[in-house]
Amino acid sequence: MKYRFSKSLDGFSSSAVREILKLTQGSSIISFAGGLPAEEFFPLDAVSEAFKRVIEGGKSALQYGLTEGYKPLRESLCRRMASKNMHVTPDEMMLTTGSQQAIDLLTRVYIDEGDIILVERPTYLAALQVFQAKGAKIYSVESDNDGMILEDLQAKIAQHNPKLVYVIPTFSNPAGRVWSLERRQGLLKICRAAEVLILEDDPYGEIQFKEGENYPSIFSLAGKAEGNGVVYTSTFSKTVAPAFRTGWVIADQEIIRQMARFKQSADLHSSTIDQQTLYHLLEHFDLDAHIALIREHYGERMRFMTNLLSELNWPGLKWEEPKGGMFIWVELPEQIKAEDLLKIAVQEGVAFVPGSTFYAENPQYNTMRLNYTHTDRETTILGMQKLAKAMESYLQNA
Amino acid sequence: MKYRFSKSLDGFSSSAVREILKLTQGSSIISFAGGLPAEEFFPLDAVSEAFKRVIEGGKSALQYGLTEGYKPLRESLCRRMASKNMHVTPDEMMLTTGSQQAIDLLTRVYIDEGDIILVERPTYLAALQVFQAKGAKIYSVESDNDGMILEDLQAKIAQHNPKLVYVIPTFSNPAGRVWSLERRQGLLKICRAAEVLILEDDPYGEIQFKEGENYPSIFSLAGKAEGNGVVYTSTFSKTVAPAFRTGWVIADQEIIRQMARFKQSADLHSSTIDQQTLYHLLEHFDLDAHIALIREHYGERMRFMTNLLSELNWPGLKWEEPKGGMFIWVELPEQIKAEDLLKIAVQEGVAFVPGSTFYAENPQYNTMRLNYTHTDRETTILGMQKLAKAMESYLQNA
Repeated sequence: MKYRFSKSLDGFSSSAVREILKLTQGSSIISFAGGLPAEEFFPLDAVSEAFKRVIEGGKSALQYGLTEGYKPLRESLCRRMASKNMHVTPDEMMLTTGSQQAIDLLTRVYIDEGDIILVERPTYLAALQVFQAKGAKIYSVESDNDGMILEDLQAKIAQHNPKLVYVIPTFSNPAGRVWSLERRQGLLKICRAAEVLILEDDPYGEIQFKEGENYPSIFSLAGKAEGNGVVYTSTFSKTVAPAFRTGWVIADQEIIRQMARFKQSADLHSSTIDQQTLYHLLEHFDLDAHIALIREHYGERMRFMTNLLSELNWPGLKWEEPKGGMFIWVELPEQIKAEDLLKIAVQEGVAFVPGSTFYAENPQYNTMRLNYTHTDRETTILGMQKLAKAMESYLQNA
Repeated sequence: MKYRFSKSLDGFSSSAVREILKLTQGSSIISFAGGLPAEEFFPLDAVSEAFKRVIEGGKSALQYGLTEGYKPLRESLCRRMASKNMHVTPDEMMLTTGSQQAIDLLTRVYIDEGDIILVERPTYLAALQVFQAKGAKIYSVESDNDGMILEDLQAKIAQHNPKLVYVIPTFSNPAGRVWSLERRQGLLKICRAAEVLILEDDPYGEIQFKEGENYPSIFSLAGKAEGNGVVYTSTFSKTVAPAFRTGWVIADQEIIRQMARFKQSADLHSSTIDQQTLYHLLEHFDLDAHIALIREHYGERMRFMTNLLSELNWPGLKWEEPKGGMFIWVELPEQIKAEDLLKIAVQEGVAFVPGSTFYAENPQYNTMRLNYTHTDRETTILGMQKLAKAMESYLQNA
């Protein structure tokens, strides 16, 4: 039978890069491509303990739950958010299947085909995919190491009348950037004046390398949730473990209520076993001490990789040392196309993500994203050697 | 700030019934309204054992997984499906957050605004919501206790040129019906001739009360997945426990591949902790013996409730004894509006779902759905007494 698929599928650009990276899954190729946390730091014992408590709670733990998510976990997360100056009630929060689902649900309740969304340049690929699948028009705002250039933001808002601005202001994916306070405040002010909703995606905010620095979320700058014009999402994937697929979103109750209606028809609710496990984990495990441990190790791995990058001595290689998060954004000499380099690199046995995939438009081809959290020292050395060989071979054939 | 929500929200009819039922949540009201399994039969020890095995597998159990779902569970489910004459490979299967997500994802990849979907009369409310949110036009096909009336199906296909037919052929929600073999074969033949995709929703198929009877799935009648024109979905929610939110969908690989692309942007993947737990449960726990136990108890509860219904002696009360599943579909005397009865019933302390909510169009107001799986004998007696009192009060005020 001939299938008559939705035209939404046209929104998904098939990507040669994705096809190449698929080949590396499950193979022996060293991957700097994924955004995987280091498994060796997963708090397996604490998870096991927490699950025991769920089971001790009896059989009702296995029943259907609320679409908005397990309430004790929401209450616990509200306290955690309050410690970061985000003051919300459990009714202003919903638990989701990772923060990815928060992006998807907000898009479903807020965006119609042809609506305009502004994003950073570059930005998170899987958010672009969500927006594209919904038929949104996406424009990128010129951005530097301090965040979006406010003049360009203002100009693009005036020009396009967007409904939504999507940002990852703290240790962004892919660029590893952190926005300055001035840019955060500026974004908020400009968007409020134009009634443009802000979606603040914060999966990496906890992975901070410099002690003492403070990067207040845009949500916290916007004050109480009601009418504040900011939707904030985060996740346990980077601080506890991804397999729980548990994220949360906070926003004006009016927005949460609409997202919950869509979530109900999307999947009724996310796994409450996982939500209950995470609740007990938060109650009995020092998550902040654990995050401190991750910060230390990831910071080390980042410095280890940037040192190796320096040793490469490729002329024209540029990067900014990340202040947190999971990625180094590398600019290659202008004549080098990272997608072509990737093909050779995979033959050598190492993978990365060409930066071009992270652009809504006019990709910059001489860029790449390197993940430093998932590989140990030895593997990182080996991978960088392979990368060096790939580059040599690229330059010889150029 | 004034929010500019998507017009998709218009698709969600706000329902007075849903508002009333919300009031009953967490209250002391006896509920025949939900579709909840009986908690006392949840295999808590087996779940605990299975989770231990996940933990024993080490920290990699907590890492990101495949969008399509944990492969060993897919393999295990393929064997289980094969025992029911549904022969698929793991590539023709995807794990979802409950079968609800399978309905949503198929709708996202297959349906555009204005496309036509045919459904049973009555049918599952939360499927109607998914279709409505996508802007589909829904028409119901006249149905009786043997399933859709094939003449009406054929006429409506000719008239509307639908893309999809959605059916729950085995122990349907809400009507508790089971389609005859003739109707199953007829549906398949007619839909194939017209190139209409069939979505077969089978959450209740395992909850069968009559031994020896055999209700082959439409998918099994359609032969191998490739090109068979049937998408089949089921779930662990009714046989193991809902909190895992783990369902699966099988179909032509072309369809699974497109659904996986949408799932990736919807939530990357569902909880792999839950999927791994269910895998170990399937390997070390006699699920079929457990299902036999559920069948026995649910059958008892069904007969207990239908006996109480008989004792009500309401003139004009009609129902068909379900051969499986979780619901009794009750037809009240024609002058009685179940939505009005519900208001009084809730005051008396008992709830049910008025049948009118389960219709795509032209609801039949003198119907109600009763769930018999969640309440024990004592509670069921009490609830039926309250229901009797509500009816008395209704008739007095009529």
